[in-house]
Amino acid sequence: MRHFVEELEHLKTKLLEMGALVEASIQRSISAVTQKDRNAAEEVFRNEDRVNAIELEIDDFAIKLLALHQPMAADLRLIVAALKINTDLERMGDLSVSIAERALSLIEGPVIKPMIDIPHIAGLVQSMVRKALDAFVMRDADLARSVLASDDAVDSLRTACYHELISFMEKDPANIKQALNLLVVTRNLERIADHSTNIAEDVLFLVKGIDVRHHAESRPPS
Amino acid sequence: MRHFVEELEHLKTKLLEMGALVEASIQRSISAVTQKDRNAAEEVFRNEDRVNAIELEIDDFAIKLLALHQPMAADLRLIVAALKINTDLERMGDLSVSIAERALSLIEGPVIKPMIDIPHIAGLVQSMVRKALDAFVMRDADLARSVLASDDAVDSLRTACYHELISFMEKDPANIKQALNLLVVTRNLERIADHSTNIAEDVLFLVKGIDVRHHAESRPPS
Repeated sequence: MRHFVEELEHLKTKLLEMGALVEASIQRSISAVTQKDRNAAEEVFRNEDRVNAIELEIDDFAIKLLALHQPMAADLRLIVAALKINTDLERMGDLSVSIAERALSLIEGPVIKPMIDIPHIAGLVQSMVRKALDAFVMRDADLARSVLASDDAVDSLRTACYHELISFMEKDPANIKQALNLLVVTRNLERIADHSTNIAEDVLFLVKGIDVRHHAESRPPS
Repeated sequence: MRHFVEELEHLKTKLLEMGALVEASIQRSISAVTQKDRNAAEEVFRNEDRVNAIELEIDDFAIKLLALHQPMAADLRLIVAALKINTDLERMGDLSVSIAERALSLIEGPVIKPMIDIPHIAGLVQSMVRKALDAFVMRDADLARSVLASDDAVDSLRTACYHELISFMEKDPANIKQALNLLVVTRNLERIADHSTNIAEDVLFLVKGIDVRHHAESRPPS
């Protein structure tokens, strides 16, 4: 049996493998929308099984570590954080599948104009995902906090996009189906940002032993 | 210090308190939409802090149990399941807040017709939540499986509702804002159903030690 320290390293490596795969799916789903790239969408669908398989592997492995060792303090926090981050990554993978599905509808339907905001939101969301994963690898609390700070920007952009798409639908009902597809894409991007925020919160819990959820760091370190 | 068995009972009790609160929020958010009941929406907003506080309490307590005892097999599965169910319940609470917010927009805007399907979907979703929590309390694998089976019905209803609302918008652009509010309500109800499914899967993991996610029970018991 490997030493416990090596087992923890293996857990982290697996989680990063999962992270890389989910990042690729998000990236490909966005290309599918913005470049009308059908192959990119297919790639997201192909990735899905692998993401699901690694999720189960990581969960099994983390639970085995809890059962076989009696991890304390920082090690215990790492395993609990890994379980939570794993769940968030899998959901982000699901959301990229949903974006890729909408991309296919968008490709089939008539071209409509308001695509400017989508690459903008998408770029912001991708950088949040990247930073959240980097913060985990480097145990960097400041980087994790910067992810929390970006979340409001995504919300504002999404709201602006929402109103633009509504006025677009009101101007010409022929736009409705395509505009709704874009609405769902932006909402899913926003949800991916929310999951990045969850991961950043887990990194702060991991690094500092504090739980910043709901209370913006008002709670004392435990 | 309490005996470990009592601690586990306390964990379950807390989780059920959380479950009852979230169920109440879902119920009130639906009343806010279907009865145009502004007070019901306010009640959901008031519940939110309490839901968030209990979520943190349960997480802290579960992690303390992992740290102080060395739970094995079924006890370990109970604690891991509690951590996961806790996260799902908190997200369901968030979704009920989002439904209550849409209810306020709906109350302020003009009345539009297609409200028939919402109570229908809402009833189905509420029964899934109830069954998932009952399955947890009674460790009832069959009841948990019945939750998984209901998920497809919710998806079909939501798709039907989606197409109805689109044609409604296309007929008269004046309906667009209100129809979009209803679309978001149905999507959020569907997401609450998804979280109930997650809880049911956790119950199966807890009861049988099998992980049914992604593989529909094809994996052998571990």
